Amino acid sequence: MVCDLSSAMETVRSKRPLVHHITNYVTVNDCANVCICSGGAPVMTDAEEDVKGMVPVANAVVLNMGTLNPRTVGAMVLAGKIAKEKGVPVVFDAVGAGATPYRNEVASRIIEETRPDVIKGNAGEISFLAGVIGGVRGVDSTSSSDDIAELVKGLAAKYCCKVVATGKKDYVSDGKDVYILTNGSDYQGCVSGTGCMLSSVLGAYVGANGVTLRALIAGITAFNVAAEDAEKSCKGPGSFKVGLLDCLFNLKSEEMSKRAKVEKA
Amino acid sequence: MVCDLSSAMETVRSKRPLVHHITNYVTVNDCANVCICSGGAPVMTDAEEDVKGMVPVANAVVLNMGTLNPRTVGAMVLAGKIAKEKGVPVVFDAVGAGATPYRNEVASRIIEETRPDVIKGNAGEISFLAGVIGGVRGVDSTSSSDDIAELVKGLAAKYCCKVVATGKKDYVSDGKDVYILTNGSDYQGCVSGTGCMLSSVLGAYVGANGVTLRALIAGITAFNVAAEDAEKSCKGPGSFKVGLLDCLFNLKSEEMSKRAKVEKA
Amino acid sequence: MVCDLSSAMETVRSKRPLVHHITNYVTVNDCANVCICSGGAPVMTDAEEDVKGMVPVANAVVLNMGTLNPRTVGAMVLAGKIAKEKGVPVVFDAVGAGATPYRNEVASRIIEETRPDVIKGNAGEISFLAGVIGGVRGVDSTSSSDDIAELVKGLAAKYCCKVVATGKKDYVSDGKDVYILTNGSDYQGCVSGTGCMLSSVLGAYVGANGVTLRALIAGITAFNVAAEDAEKSCKGPGSFKVGLLDCLFNLKSEEMSKRAKVEKA
Repeated sequence: MVCDLSSAMETVRSKRPLVHHITNYVTVNDCANVCICSGGAPVMTDAEEDVKGMVPVANAVVLNMGTLNPRTVGAMVLAGKIAKEKGVPVVFDAVGAGATPYRNEVASRIIEETRPDVIKGNAGEISFLAGVIGGVRGVDSTSSSDDIAELVKGLAAKYCCKVVATGKKDYVSDGKDVYILTNGSDYQGCVSGTGCMLSSVLGAYVGANGVTLRALIAGITAFNVAAEDAEKSCKGPGSFKVGLLDCLFNLKSEEMSKRAKVEKA
Repeated sequence: MVCDLSSAMETVRSKRPLVHHITNYVTVNDCANVCICSGGAPVMTDAEEDVKGMVPVANAVVLNMGTLNPRTVGAMVLAGKIAKEKGVPVVFDAVGAGATPYRNEVASRIIEETRPDVIKGNAGEISFLAGVIGGVRGVDSTSSSDDIAELVKGLAAKYCCKVVATGKKDYVSDGKDVYILTNGSDYQGCVSGTGCMLSSVLGAYVGANGVTLRALIAGITAFNVAAEDAEKSCKGPGSFKVGLLDCLFNLKSEEMSKRAKVEKA
Repeated sequence: MVCDLSSAMETVRSKRPLVHHITNYVTVNDCANVCICSGGAPVMTDAEEDVKGMVPVANAVVLNMGTLNPRTVGAMVLAGKIAKEKGVPVVFDAVGAGATPYRNEVASRIIEETRPDVIKGNAGEISFLAGVIGGVRGVDSTSSSDDIAELVKGLAAKYCCKVVATGKKDYVSDGKDVYILTNGSDYQGCVSGTGCMLSSVLGAYVGANGVTLRALIAGITAFNVAAEDAEKSCKGPGSFKVGLLDCLFNLKSEEMSKRAKVEKA
């Protein structure tokens, strides 16, 4: 599988997929810029009035509940339903699932009512969604789990979708196989929104390549290899984030593919 | 005309105009910072309750419909009307006009009901507003048009305002003359919100200098010359954006004026 | 007092307090990142539905009225009340108090109804809140006052809280004593949101250390010493902000304490 990651990256860059985001206001600018640097074309709009017109022309939709409120939750559900109807792939980032009752309710509602193609979160969020009360604390859980691979696989099987759980190790599953990815930098945990940024990258990758394990693995690997490059020349979290955008933009697809650390669980 | 651009920049820096923004949450931080780096003092507030008190004390108002919703559209219309009444110049950035029916409706409403002093967009957005269905795709159109100069002029004449259309070449018109500006960097297309940022710069320039072609040409040129400087030392889109702020802040007015590439169409 | 500042910093880094923000969309990303770089764990959420679940598990709450609207004002008041009930310290940043009638009304309401543990603003905002009409212009006042120390002390005494007034000199008072802090960089005035960022740092410091003058003085000093470091290697406001995050992240607690410029008024 690894030998093909470069083509997935080239496909994003040549197709330049339009990625419609309904996302939080904390990390939205970084999401827009990382989407561009990965090869996509981001658009952010969250009014129900506008979602109706935008989803059908998008190549992918990213729903991120980081700073949810009833108005944007309504827009997310609407966007997810239209996307399903039109065959536009949806990536759902369940930011903070498990942290509060409202987040739990909204995450469940989005998953049940819109059936996203990709459910993504950190280990704690995915643990919660998988029905195990995870160690979610705020929105950047450091919970670890020996059986996270099983949780990811189980959640993917239950909802007939792909699931991505991020952390020191990243897990990707389609409900049958689970892949474990180990590229990345510790600085990713020192910058707000690297998880959100990855979701935007994944939006571009599935928007251009379709919803495949390969597309997801390539997107995660591209982001994490760029993070490794950014770490080398940064002086701290501020310059790391700036460098992450530069490095992802400049990353050569063959190099990304060669450096990929992917193994089947 | 070119010989006078430096004084327009000096005027912004000495007057430090207060620029009230109702803008999108994607690029708002960059807008605030670029406004400061251009010499202005930004304030962002979008509640109708607050707009009433803020517009009358502002030197310019920037309306940007990037992440519009009914609440902020109402505030934009109100701000535009108060500004007109108080003689405060308004720059309207029609982000995404032509992309969705809702955006088209809102752009038309803002223009018809508030009659902004400056209408700004990329070539696709301005083409749409000029009544020609442009090639707008999401919000960063790459549509080109041989007759963009005519469209800009026609739109300015129709609404008795100034019009700015941005792209590889920038067009500015007052309905009679059209100027074509060719400073800038390709990296501007690799960073989310450079168009929004330019609107904030233009808010500062018209706030300090009045709504003249010279003010607009000076503002665009300052931004684009800074972009040329930023390109020289950047490593990618991330460091380009950081450098753009630094370079605009440090740009000498005489140098900006000397390097200006402005011609009459 | 100065000799103990290092331990306050170490406490933040070891406890990693969860800081719940209801803040503006202009500077929120910088607030999240500076909170991390100071040693805290930020979470931003502003729906009343979510505030109920988040405040009780937070170590501190930061309320910032930069881009207020009726929905988020309601959430701020609710968060403040729950925090008071649960004993979670609240830092209130009165951004733009004195600038518009709506802001004045909201600032008063938040203070009267929630009794924050720390009231923070620039000199103009604090002057206004202290009942003297300050020279607030937009939200970055350059007003100066010989008797700012008295205003800060009076406001703290009146509301039985700590008050922080920022500017070239920073003032901190508990209603009895006033401390004047003079670390910092002029570049802080050239970047949007350095005041907001400081509030997030203070949230982390009081969340980990309790609401003491020492915690506030340590937080302000850490931020301002990092700013001094950032100034040395920056090329302008863009790289200053990036460096500020790096420098705060890397700052050694003993060095911070040694370089502190703190005197009793």
